[in-house]
Amino acid sequence: MRRILILNGPNLNLLGEREPEIYGPQTLADIAADAKKLGAELGIEVDSFQSNHEGELIDRIQAARRAADGLIVNPGGLTHTSVSIRDALAAAALPAIEVHLTNLARREPFRRTSRIGDVVWGTISGFGPTGYLLAVRAFWHYFEATPSG
Amino acid sequence: MRRILILNGPNLNLLGEREPEIYGPQTLADIAADAKKLGAELGIEVDSFQSNHEGELIDRIQAARRAADGLIVNPGGLTHTSVSIRDALAAAALPAIEVHLTNLARREPFRRTSRIGDVVWGTISGFGPTGYLLAVRAFWHYFEATPSG
Amino acid sequence: MRRILILNGPNLNLLGEREPEIYGPQTLADIAADAKKLGAELGIEVDSFQSNHEGELIDRIQAARRAADGLIVNPGGLTHTSVSIRDALAAAALPAIEVHLTNLARREPFRRTSRIGDVVWGTISGFGPTGYLLAVRAFWHYFEATPSG
Amino acid sequence: MRRILILNGPNLNLLGEREPEIYGPQTLADIAADAKKLGAELGIEVDSFQSNHEGELIDRIQAARRAADGLIVNPGGLTHTSVSIRDALAAAALPAIEVHLTNLARREPFRRTSRIGDVVWGTISGFGPTGYLLAVRAFWHYFEATPSG
Amino acid sequence: MRRILILNGPNLNLLGEREPEIYGPQTLADIAADAKKLGAELGIEVDSFQSNHEGELIDRIQAARRAADGLIVNPGGLTHTSVSIRDALAAAALPAIEVHLTNLARREPFRRTSRIGDVVWGTISGFGPTGYLLAVRAFWHYFEATPSG
Amino acid sequence: MRRILILNGPNLNLLGEREPEIYGPQTLADIAADAKKLGAELGIEVDSFQSNHEGELIDRIQAARRAADGLIVNPGGLTHTSVSIRDALAAAALPAIEVHLTNLARREPFRRTSRIGDVVWGTISGFGPTGYLLAVRAFWHYFEATPSG
Amino acid sequence: MRRILILNGPNLNLLGEREPEIYGPQTLADIAADAKKLGAELGIEVDSFQSNHEGELIDRIQAARRAADGLIVNPGGLTHTSVSIRDALAAAALPAIEVHLTNLARREPFRRTSRIGDVVWGTISGFGPTGYLLAVRAFWHYFEATPSG
Amino acid sequence: MRRILILNGPNLNLLGEREPEIYGPQTLADIAADAKKLGAELGIEVDSFQSNHEGELIDRIQAARRAADGLIVNPGGLTHTSVSIRDALAAAALPAIEVHLTNLARREPFRRTSRIGDVVWGTISGFGPTGYLLAVRAFWHYFEATPSG
Amino acid sequence: MRRILILNGPNLNLLGEREPEIYGPQTLADIAADAKKLGAELGIEVDSFQSNHEGELIDRIQAARRAADGLIVNPGGLTHTSVSIRDALAAAALPAIEVHLTNLARREPFRRTSRIGDVVWGTISGFGPTGYLLAVRAFWHYFEATPSG
Amino acid sequence: MRRILILNGPNLNLLGEREPEIYGPQTLADIAADAKKLGAELGIEVDSFQSNHEGELIDRIQAARRAADGLIVNPGGLTHTSVSIRDALAAAALPAIEVHLTNLARREPFRRTSRIGDVVWGTISGFGPTGYLLAVRAFWHYFEATPSG
Amino acid sequence: MRRILILNGPNLNLLGEREPEIYGPQTLADIAADAKKLGAELGIEVDSFQSNHEGELIDRIQAARRAADGLIVNPGGLTHTSVSIRDALAAAALPAIEVHLTNLARREPFRRTSRIGDVVWGTISGFGPTGYLLAVRAFWHYFEATPSG
Amino acid sequence: MRRILILNGPNLNLLGEREPEIYGPQTLADIAADAKKLGAELGIEVDSFQSNHEGELIDRIQAARRAADGLIVNPGGLTHTSVSIRDALAAAALPAIEVHLTNLARREPFRRTSRIGDVVWGTISGFGPTGYLLAVRAFWHYFEATPSG
Repeated sequence: MRRILILNGPNLNLLGEREPEIYGPQTLADIAADAKKLGAELGIEVDSFQSNHEGELIDRIQAARRAADGLIVNPGGLTHTSVSIRDALAAAALPAIEVHLTNLARREPFRRTSRIGDVVWGTISGFGPTGYLLAVRAFWHYFEATPSG
Repeated sequence: MRRILILNGPNLNLLGEREPEIYGPQTLADIAADAKKLGAELGIEVDSFQSNHEGELIDRIQAARRAADGLIVNPGGLTHTSVSIRDALAAAALPAIEVHLTNLARREPFRRTSRIGDVVWGTISGFGPTGYLLAVRAFWHYFEATPSG
Repeated sequence: MRRILILNGPNLNLLGEREPEIYGPQTLADIAADAKKLGAELGIEVDSFQSNHEGELIDRIQAARRAADGLIVNPGGLTHTSVSIRDALAAAALPAIEVHLTNLARREPFRRTSRIGDVVWGTISGFGPTGYLLAVRAFWHYFEATPSG
Repeated sequence: MRRILILNGPNLNLLGEREPEIYGPQTLADIAADAKKLGAELGIEVDSFQSNHEGELIDRIQAARRAADGLIVNPGGLTHTSVSIRDALAAAALPAIEVHLTNLARREPFRRTSRIGDVVWGTISGFGPTGYLLAVRAFWHYFEATPSG
Repeated sequence: MRRILILNGPNLNLLGEREPEIYGPQTLADIAADAKKLGAELGIEVDSFQSNHEGELIDRIQAARRAADGLIVNPGGLTHTSVSIRDALAAAALPAIEVHLTNLARREPFRRTSRIGDVVWGTISGFGPTGYLLAVRAFWHYFEATPSG
Repeated sequence: MRRILILNGPNLNLLGEREPEIYGPQTLADIAADAKKLGAELGIEVDSFQSNHEGELIDRIQAARRAADGLIVNPGGLTHTSVSIRDALAAAALPAIEVHLTNLARREPFRRTSRIGDVVWGTISGFGPTGYLLAVRAFWHYFEATPSG
Repeated sequence: MRRILILNGPNLNLLGEREPEIYGPQTLADIAADAKKLGAELGIEVDSFQSNHEGELIDRIQAARRAADGLIVNPGGLTHTSVSIRDALAAAALPAIEVHLTNLARREPFRRTSRIGDVVWGTISGFGPTGYLLAVRAFWHYFEATPSG
Repeated sequence: MRRILILNGPNLNLLGEREPEIYGPQTLADIAADAKKLGAELGIEVDSFQSNHEGELIDRIQAARRAADGLIVNPGGLTHTSVSIRDALAAAALPAIEVHLTNLARREPFRRTSRIGDVVWGTISGFGPTGYLLAVRAFWHYFEATPSG
Repeated sequence: MRRILILNGPNLNLLGEREPEIYGPQTLADIAADAKKLGAELGIEVDSFQSNHEGELIDRIQAARRAADGLIVNPGGLTHTSVSIRDALAAAALPAIEVHLTNLARREPFRRTSRIGDVVWGTISGFGPTGYLLAVRAFWHYFEATPSG
Repeated sequence: MRRILILNGPNLNLLGEREPEIYGPQTLADIAADAKKLGAELGIEVDSFQSNHEGELIDRIQAARRAADGLIVNPGGLTHTSVSIRDALAAAALPAIEVHLTNLARREPFRRTSRIGDVVWGTISGFGPTGYLLAVRAFWHYFEATPSG
Repeated sequence: MRRILILNGPNLNLLGEREPEIYGPQTLADIAADAKKLGAELGIEVDSFQSNHEGELIDRIQAARRAADGLIVNPGGLTHTSVSIRDALAAAALPAIEVHLTNLARREPFRRTSRIGDVVWGTISGFGPTGYLLAVRAFWHYFEATPSG
Repeated sequence: MRRILILNGPNLNLLGEREPEIYGPQTLADIAADAKKLGAELGIEVDSFQSNHEGELIDRIQAARRAADGLIVNPGGLTHTSVSIRDALAAAALPAIEVHLTNLARREPFRRTSRIGDVVWGTISGFGPTGYLLAVRAFWHYFEATPSG
């Protein structure tokens, strides 16, 4: 059974209470549960991790090199600045999908640069929590096409 | 029954023969058929249109204002320059999804600017033909949440 | 009798229905009729042409070299990118007035560059449909000062 | 009866003698008289003020808040730098038209930025003295559409 | 007794009537009176001067070199462009505090550059009229630490 | 009784020993004690927290949403890069004041950009430790004007 | 026998009448005839196509993939903006030569960027109609060195 | 007898007392007297004018069109921003020399742009008060070569 | 005996397994051991520390102020963004050498900016693990020239 | 008989041995011989000169003003920086053709700027040694059209 | 007796024949003779050197450290690019004057940057050959104020 | 026995006398002798060459292709501009080390760009003359790892 790890960066733990007019009413736990449920339907194990600490996110990406077959990454505010998360993703050598809840093209200019955009497989942005589900489905297509072992 | 129109811009008619190492082996007809089939499963009618002419794409977006409930748009090379397609999308006042086959962040710098990025609902890029299927599913979620008249 | 051709670019055919809070309630036909009427009062024949196709606009500007004494041009979204419309205007060697319905300085930054601004006689922007009438009057002053053959 | 104030900035007092190949042969007094005459025909009182001193222009704009229904402003060289004239116009909360004698797009690059462009109603540039007459007419249309108290 | 001069630039005389949703309901006279009162409590004489004329502000800063122990400066729109006020402040060789009513970081990009920012002692911005009071207190701390001759 | 939390970022724990010619002789403990004392005089409880870890600062800002009525923030070197601290401040939805000991306009160019400048209430910079006292007083004015509960 | 297609973009149909002081007195038909004649001497079949419509140029480039052994392309004003013509050329996978009548380095700055410059074999610019003849000769050298079939 | 007018802008009245380590110990009166004396030796009448008000400088330049044969201009801080002084100089149509006491290339970056640099005859900068004397001599050479009426 | 601390930032713990075609086959432990051995030969004690957490690196640099005579720093991805590590190094007031395994000039443009480059003594980049040994030798020269206590 | 001088700049003497995968297998002597032979066929005398010294190239261009009717110039790496070669070409007042072996648009960004591009007649780049032959032919056309003496 | 060396860079040997409408009719020998004559009148020995070779100019500047009391430098096209001439001037530690015949502010943008501007004493530009004479006089003032030995 | 050539560019012949507070007291001969001595200890022959002429440096690099196994290059002021030295190094196809005496990151911005940085093996900067010794040692490691012939 294939395993996916969802990584969420700083402040995403506030989903559901932080600026709901921008980020929507669902909590991160809701989103993780929905993704896990969809994964189960598609035969994919889905885990989830959030941290406000860049270092912990890097540690977890490094660990995932042996413990996961794919990554869904929403680095939050670190998206735009963290070369270290980028390097960790490149070193992990796993297919990764960058997800953003909001359409970054509609927000502040500094959110239009992604430091990880060219080391991930693809990007899904603007669809709110649905984006995570689309990413799980993208991995389903990917695993269909690339049989393990 | 909800209707979606998939619009493909210049050179996408060459899919399957043009630079397959970049764009993959599927033809545009294959992709349209797959999207139509998935739409049928989800209760969504999916049409498809391609043109190398910016004017025809604008005409078709204008017509869609009355004939569709959502747009999936891959403007090809016009993505980066066409203010007119942007204006047509804004005028259409329909939810739209921008799809790109390749991960634009890995290509030439001029492909990193999208003229339509901030008038669409969201963007899916890098997943090849799978991107269109993810977009159809995104619309399914959208239609679930916004019951028609 | 002097002849003026009004050229409108992509999406201006939607006037009156597209985003009326930005572009106002008048249709393009209303505007053309008002300009024609004012022209008649001032002894100027006013024709009007709209297209969503850059190529058709260029064809028409080329044709105008022999068929008109002045041009009123609102290239819509092509204002900001079309070197070819610029070249056609320069080749036409007719006095031309650039008209914009909205005050472009209040809109997105990419609308602040006009590719035709330095090949036209002058620019009128921000006055809505009134701008076309001001342009007709500007030509009246011009024709007064430059008697025809 | 509606009142309009025409404000001209530095060096516009030299019109008619300064670089006539660029700015034309009419003096500022001629232009003001023509505008006043047209205003009289249209039932609009037109006054005119010129100064080489930014401070005096600001003082006059502030005073106009109570004494005029519209402003026609040609700040001359201050167009490109004066945040204070911009702020005065914004504070005046009157409809204002920016007029330039020459087509600024054909001149030095630093003349392409207007500090007041996004706080005025609209802009008329390139038509020489005719521009002021077009601005008076624009106000006539405006007053027609917005009946006073 | 130490003396402070508060200098306010163009359009600040409109406080209380100009765009109160941005600048608040207090007039400049109110603010000056409050600052004078606080100064009296702290043993500091506080004077106030406003002008729409850059030249008058420069004249006054030059005069202050002999007549004041500190300056509180809000150059209004001149903040962003006036090298001459900067030079006058540098020549005055007095401690100076830059005060802005609004948080300039939330406004137009051209307001983010201060020509005087690196010749003043410090900056207080965003607190409305309270900013002037904080500046007076800052000077109280300064005078405590630097006993006069 | 209102509560304020003072947050200090990386390297501010070195105050008093690190480069005293730039940052002054007072330790961070001295500054916190002075602010606490002034708070006590004004009826405001003042707490203080410092960390060299961005993640801990974010955690603490998130916690403050329930435990404080205002924030005084000096993110040190994170000021110029941390989108995550910015997002945490925006999510906290508390009035916040940005304080810097030095006048950043006099230092390296990269210190002139603040990632938090447009999500805080106001900024006080250049006054050394006095800046924190001014910020406490600013909150006193704020609380006067906005009665709790 | 090898075949070359010469593609000319917008406004090149005006050659000989449009701004002859810039573009010279020869018509496009003259140029095409001269190139055809030289081709005949060198054993190369030379065809020619002009359009003001970007879409038609793209259609023709796509068709050329099967019908020609080389392309000579002068996209006119589209040179500087058309990603779609670039993509069509790249997809055609034919050797292509970019020709410009004028020395673009002497003209407006926006003419110094070519969107196709790095997908063509080489560029010849500034020689007027002679440039097309040089391009035909370049292909003769190319065909000499790369025997067909 | 030829007449030269020396114009000095804001803060130059402080010479001799303002930052003498940068600007030297001579007062503006000393400099004017030295220039007048040298002029007398060379048969040139030299007048001098200083103002902190841009408007007064413009008024004086306009007046000089009839009253002087050459201008020596040191606009001080207005050098870098004043389009209006530039326009006045261009309108005056007199030979003008730009003088700066200090070597601007060694100072802040914003001092490296001169708004008048391309409308004057030449520039002399860095030589302190000697620069004015060199400018008087330059005019002597000029008048030798261009005999008056 | 002099002491040197080698600090390695995020992802350098992966050396030997991460992208060996870029970073080489040696592990960080190998490199540290080689440096320690060379240090021993030269009479210098060499310690080594790695962390993926910026905060821990800052803590360690602060501690080194009392515990080391020199620093060898490879901040990994933090090189390009961390003002806080820069500030910690500046506060440490120890000679420091910046080491990079790869030649950053050959990699992505964002790797060409070093936030610490102007607070270190010197930089050694591109030599792989050898760079650390060269840095140890550089300190040997330094300690020779600057006898301790 | 007309004379052409071919000038080659630094490192072009290495052709045939330096990076043949970029520059091809022909030596500079081969190229010069081929150009001389073609010149002979066309009745043009062709000489060739190469130097690694900018000064020698300038000397030779200056000498050519009297000794040649046209120049073919490939300044190698000096293309992008040498204002002096540009000035020499402008002073020579001879028709000149800029030739580059490779398509500079495909190489490093700094190779996209030519300091001589706007002082030469035209440019031929990307065709390898063939470019020199095309340049000789271009001169043949030129000499046909402009009969000597 | 004080000695001055005049250094002229590439292409200045062509003065009098090269583009006389820009650079005037005097030859460099004329200019050198005039400067020598003026020097003799003022008690200053004036030598002159010209080279098209950057290296020879550097050699000569290095030699001048022992053989001259001041330098007048017109590096021609090297002005804008040569860091090495700048370094030689800085190393020479002699007062130097930068002279340009033309007003560089009126020419191509790349001529507006001087690599030596901030290592020279001052700059004189735009006065043609007179500039050298003004520079000799500037040195006379300098030597008056700084008695030798 | 392996051979290394040390190449020093313009003005490095002045070491020891030129600005010793920046460049230190050692002469270039001292440095070359130290490097030669270290080379002898390590079994490497070390030669040294300096020139103020870019062309001579290029000639020498070209010659080194056959006469050396490695290059140590300090191009002085040419570092930042010389594409030709870069091309010569690339053509030489030898391992090269870029050495700078000073830490360029602490100096003028134009010294932060190296034209050769991405064609050399690695860079050592900031260590004064010690840098050359480190470079010799780096080659020793390199030769150990890559046995000759």
